Amino acid sequence: MGTVIALSGQVGGAKLADGLRRLRGRDLTVIVNTGDDHEVFGLAFSPDIDTMLYTLGGIAGPGAGWEPAGETYVLHEMLHRLGSEHRVRVGDRSLALPLLRSEALREEYPLSRITLGFCDTLGIDARVVPMSNDPVRTVVITDDGHVSYHEYLTELECAPVVKGFLYAGADVARIPDEVLDALHAPDLEAIVLCPANPYHTIQPILAVQGLREMLRECGAPIIAVSPIVGDRALKGAAGKMMQELGHEVSARRAALEYYRLIDGFVIDSVDEAAAADIRACGIDVAVAPTIMRSEDDRVALAQAVLDLAEVVRARKQAERDA
Amino acid sequence: MGTVIALSGQVGGAKLADGLRRLRGRDLTVIVNTGDDHEVFGLAFSPDIDTMLYTLGGIAGPGAGWEPAGETYVLHEMLHRLGSEHRVRVGDRSLALPLLRSEALREEYPLSRITLGFCDTLGIDARVVPMSNDPVRTVVITDDGHVSYHEYLTELECAPVVKGFLYAGADVARIPDEVLDALHAPDLEAIVLCPANPYHTIQPILAVQGLREMLRECGAPIIAVSPIVGDRALKGAAGKMMQELGHEVSARRAALEYYRLIDGFVIDSVDEAAAADIRACGIDVAVAPTIMRSEDDRVALAQAVLDLAEVVRARKQAERDA
Repeated sequence: MGTVIALSGQVGGAKLADGLRRLRGRDLTVIVNTGDDHEVFGLAFSPDIDTMLYTLGGIAGPGAGWEPAGETYVLHEMLHRLGSEHRVRVGDRSLALPLLRSEALREEYPLSRITLGFCDTLGIDARVVPMSNDPVRTVVITDDGHVSYHEYLTELECAPVVKGFLYAGADVARIPDEVLDALHAPDLEAIVLCPANPYHTIQPILAVQGLREMLRECGAPIIAVSPIVGDRALKGAAGKMMQELGHEVSARRAALEYYRLIDGFVIDSVDEAAAADIRACGIDVAVAPTIMRSEDDRVALAQAVLDLAEVVRARKQAERDA
Repeated sequence: MGTVIALSGQVGGAKLADGLRRLRGRDLTVIVNTGDDHEVFGLAFSPDIDTMLYTLGGIAGPGAGWEPAGETYVLHEMLHRLGSEHRVRVGDRSLALPLLRSEALREEYPLSRITLGFCDTLGIDARVVPMSNDPVRTVVITDDGHVSYHEYLTELECAPVVKGFLYAGADVARIPDEVLDALHAPDLEAIVLCPANPYHTIQPILAVQGLREMLRECGAPIIAVSPIVGDRALKGAAGKMMQELGHEVSARRAALEYYRLIDGFVIDSVDEAAAADIRACGIDVAVAPTIMRSEDDRVALAQAVLDLAEVVRARKQAERDA
């Protein structure tokens, strides 16, 4: 057993990262999307990092993994009573990480160090690190102009038609040392692209200057898990975006979002018929239940991903030997 | 009936201000101490302003007037779980005003305008304004060095022996326009020093450059209410401080804290024996119940204060006529 890198974000991505953590513990490094980061009240919100910390720390809400279990909203009610026009409903417990993060950022600690500190406090053995300590902001190009992803999600409720995406700052953002260390680990076993929106969760990570190339060059099998099951996204707007970008909404299309990057792709059992088409693109395929309802589901999917990585590794070895 | 100015802070001061508000409504201007203001998590906390807004807005906790009724602390628990070392327990609802204030300050609105905006939202007809829009910080000189009042109260739990006070920044702090307008009102009926710690609540207000002189020069009767009942402070550390500064703890001594400023002093019924001594200093005295348990108590004490102002006004008129 070697070390594992996961690229992740959102609730589904956090669930698979948790499965991998249960299998690999401290040998897992999770690189988390920060393209959705934003400020409210001058505080540094990192939704994907916080979702990851709640999930891996075992304190995520069962029905709403993006916030701690048992969340309450009395501060939000008070803010509205006092005339606040903020539309986002920030829970009482959910303000803790942004408050502490903002304080540490003001003291000039890098985001990666701050995030690893949260891992320590929450007893998370895996290493959760942001894709960069420099700001990258996902911009949605809509038929009504450019907006930040955060604005698209909250103010605009994902309504405008999506024409494309920009990852502002990604071309000059630096890869954190913790990510470089993980990429250079001599026993790197697999790189996992977790099931999450390709456009605003995984692609922003890949857009960080040099990261995509380093992933390819490090030689470890790169395995993605489809965020599309049947003809729709499990959660969120991936299906809607895929359609508006002119694509069919399918596991096959999801695989093509990572064409020339991934070696293997895990699709849900309901999409088994798509396996041949995806294999025809030169991508190894595994079929597994991808809907993670229980902790066992997370571990089983994580194991399926690592198994596929082993298949890819063996095939590559055989090709080299031939 | 004319207009009234109150200098105020803390819970007792807010209660009397509420009594005055019930009598005078929009003709009341409350000048609130900001010497205890401080930052936690980079947010602008103004404890005396917030206590005043909760109290006048009718949402203060019945047992803890410095926070909204029904306060909860789930954010605080989460912060500690995440390793925060902040000792101050900030309630969930209590974070709303500092969040909104900090946001408005970053947008360069002056504190007075922000505070009047909160009055509007909370349906407070009186005008609550900070003693200055410029920073003034009360410093406690202890036998163990200089500390901010906030640190003295929270980190040090009021333990060190008090040698004196400084009001850093007061000598260059400017009086807000809203305060100047109130001071120049042609029908100014009374200036009220509410029952509150003289050293870190009322004196910081008087220390704002030129304010003490303007209060004297505007000619309206200046009436203070004793924060000392019997041989102790009703709330807080006023008694301890008075003693450590070498004074007896008494209503008479409390009156002397405002010597050469006030025209009248309201003492509690239990201190009636001190009336003659205080009158001997040239200060008119009224005796009244000063412990405000009910809303009626607040109004009754406010009326006693305004009645004493009328007595002072009549005496001064008689002296001028003589």
